[in-house]
Amino acid sequence: MSDKKLGITKRVRVTPFTRRVEQAGVKAYTVYNHMLLPAVFESAEADYWHLCEHVQVWDVSAERQVEVRGPDSARLVQLMTPRDLSKQQLLQGKYAPMCDSAGRVLNDPIVIKLAQDRWWISLADSDIRLWGQGLAQGYGFDVEVFEPDVFPLAVQGPKADDLMARVFGEEIRSIRFFRGMMLAFNGVDFYVARSGWSKQGGFEIYVHDTSLAEPLWDELFSQGTDLNVRAGCPNGIERIEAGLLSYGSDMTEQENLFECGLDAFIDLNADIESLSLPALRAMADRQTRQYVGIVFDNPVDFSSVANTIGGFDVLDGDRVTGEIRSQTWSPRYKKHLAMAIVQKSWLAGRSQVEIAGQQGKIVDLPFSKDSLQA
Amino acid sequence: MSDKKLGITKRVRVTPFTRRVEQAGVKAYTVYNHMLLPAVFESAEADYWHLCEHVQVWDVSAERQVEVRGPDSARLVQLMTPRDLSKQQLLQGKYAPMCDSAGRVLNDPIVIKLAQDRWWISLADSDIRLWGQGLAQGYGFDVEVFEPDVFPLAVQGPKADDLMARVFGEEIRSIRFFRGMMLAFNGVDFYVARSGWSKQGGFEIYVHDTSLAEPLWDELFSQGTDLNVRAGCPNGIERIEAGLLSYGSDMTEQENLFECGLDAFIDLNADIESLSLPALRAMADRQTRQYVGIVFDNPVDFSSVANTIGGFDVLDGDRVTGEIRSQTWSPRYKKHLAMAIVQKSWLAGRSQVEIAGQQGKIVDLPFSKDSLQA
Repeated sequence: MSDKKLGITKRVRVTPFTRRVEQAGVKAYTVYNHMLLPAVFESAEADYWHLCEHVQVWDVSAERQVEVRGPDSARLVQLMTPRDLSKQQLLQGKYAPMCDSAGRVLNDPIVIKLAQDRWWISLADSDIRLWGQGLAQGYGFDVEVFEPDVFPLAVQGPKADDLMARVFGEEIRSIRFFRGMMLAFNGVDFYVARSGWSKQGGFEIYVHDTSLAEPLWDELFSQGTDLNVRAGCPNGIERIEAGLLSYGSDMTEQENLFECGLDAFIDLNADIESLSLPALRAMADRQTRQYVGIVFDNPVDFSSVANTIGGFDVLDGDRVTGEIRSQTWSPRYKKHLAMAIVQKSWLAGRSQVEIAGQQGKIVDLPFSKDSLQA
Repeated sequence: MSDKKLGITKRVRVTPFTRRVEQAGVKAYTVYNHMLLPAVFESAEADYWHLCEHVQVWDVSAERQVEVRGPDSARLVQLMTPRDLSKQQLLQGKYAPMCDSAGRVLNDPIVIKLAQDRWWISLADSDIRLWGQGLAQGYGFDVEVFEPDVFPLAVQGPKADDLMARVFGEEIRSIRFFRGMMLAFNGVDFYVARSGWSKQGGFEIYVHDTSLAEPLWDELFSQGTDLNVRAGCPNGIERIEAGLLSYGSDMTEQENLFECGLDAFIDLNADIESLSLPALRAMADRQTRQYVGIVFDNPVDFSSVANTIGGFDVLDGDRVTGEIRSQTWSPRYKKHLAMAIVQKSWLAGRSQVEIAGQQGKIVDLPFSKDSLQA
């Protein structure tokens, strides 16, 4: 964590949970979609262990929704992503990267189908609403595109099912991954999905009635005392161990979905109207870079590595052959883990790389138990 | 300033000046267009006095450019703003709020005409590139819309002309407000404009060649020793004294240009093709709110005032009649200053308001010397 403070003005929006987050002792924030997103409570490592063993409540309000509503809504949302949404069920979420006509990734949201003519795009950090609004205007679509005041609250960790069942009822346990239900709290129905930005399991509650934000937070804490519930936030250690790429850090408009190993979310052969599919089809077998993991047996001191706007350089002699965007010491595996985008031509047949005087083993992403425990 | 730290990841982009900014002792950042923007060096008040008396160098890289290039570029940029750009000169900048077809303010940038078919939109904090790109795609315009790597460096304060003349030559003094020239540093021509986010005067240098970023910074400091040059940043005290509204804080999509007193930047009668003009014409004489200044003789403790996502409430009994978005103690005038958007019906004939037990005088914006010194 940097030792720099965050200058807070109204431009960096507070959330209906910010007061509770402050009372819970948040130490650092980041800014995400012009809004406060908690970054550290106790410490990155203490937060990590707690997340993996208990249950945490996360204020992820910054994961803003873009609502697309009206007769042309399904058409507009499909235009924005190369993933086929034609068979999406009601209340189902789909990870659906948004790409422009050159195949550049503009965001990697979860798209939620609330009704055939009402969709939420649950955002990573960029103002996709402006893109959707521009498209709707230019194409003359009969659709509204706006940012509703919906503030997701995540409940994450191995005890998330137990805590959520106490607050929303046992039926919560039947929700499958990326599926959702409308469930009542204090007489108001909320969209609740099994999702969230950790691999520890859990739910996201889409809080559209802000008068119930603090009561819901308080109920989760009062019901969760014996489960050791705490306030938490997306955790870098857990994310990197899980090999999850973060939009804006690991995946930007300079990377494409193929390089990022996200081919599974491009329906190359689907018969759909999608802005990016023609470009993605053309580039499918012409990739020169790919993401890999690098595993070091000892902590790596990155302070000596050239740190550009892109990331930390991966060098082949004097030649830059890749960039590390995210890296962390893993307290569980006692390894230093990095995710790097590198040249395929350099990668061919290579299994090791030296960075900051340390030999690292090059492995596939996501990291396998084998590669972490070897 | 908050006591919270900023969690920094690659998603929050560093700039070509960040190393120098750190060496200069930055204490706090904010995040603006997904990029670090320095917020405090010594203290808000010490930074303020220095800015008003000497000269500062500001890393305002976060004021990102959207470049619009191609045969339809002038048409697209005009479509995005209700300000008439038809007579704009080459290398001239114009404050040109961007509004959608409902008249909502999406950003309030400076638009710079580099050529008839090449424009920069120099941004406040929102991803306007996505809006421009969506419009271009939907309308089928022959135009490229992208974010070039251009990093503005501002030189602000009463001694800015003297410092800039030493580095770029005496001709800098002839540049009028919001006009620019191409001027050489180390053999490379940079666009230099008389502009910047303070009322103390100064320039912005649009640094497109990052290999010269640190050399330029260093030259400004080595030439400015006797002028007492320091690193600085946009300063909240100076901004509020000047009555400048900040996009995202004071002016959001919930306000319109009329309410914000920015009628002068809407060319209601121009014969131009602008998305927002029809809506703005229709709403011109139907305003129910307006911005005012409030001047208190003593410091106001806002901690007791209801602080919503909107701002601090202005109350008429129990009824919320307005919101304060920005406020500061003015060390120069020994007054507490606030900018509030209030109901016109409440305002009529009223000259005082009580907030947190203090009587404030309601005045026009920008604050006049008279209202501050009375």
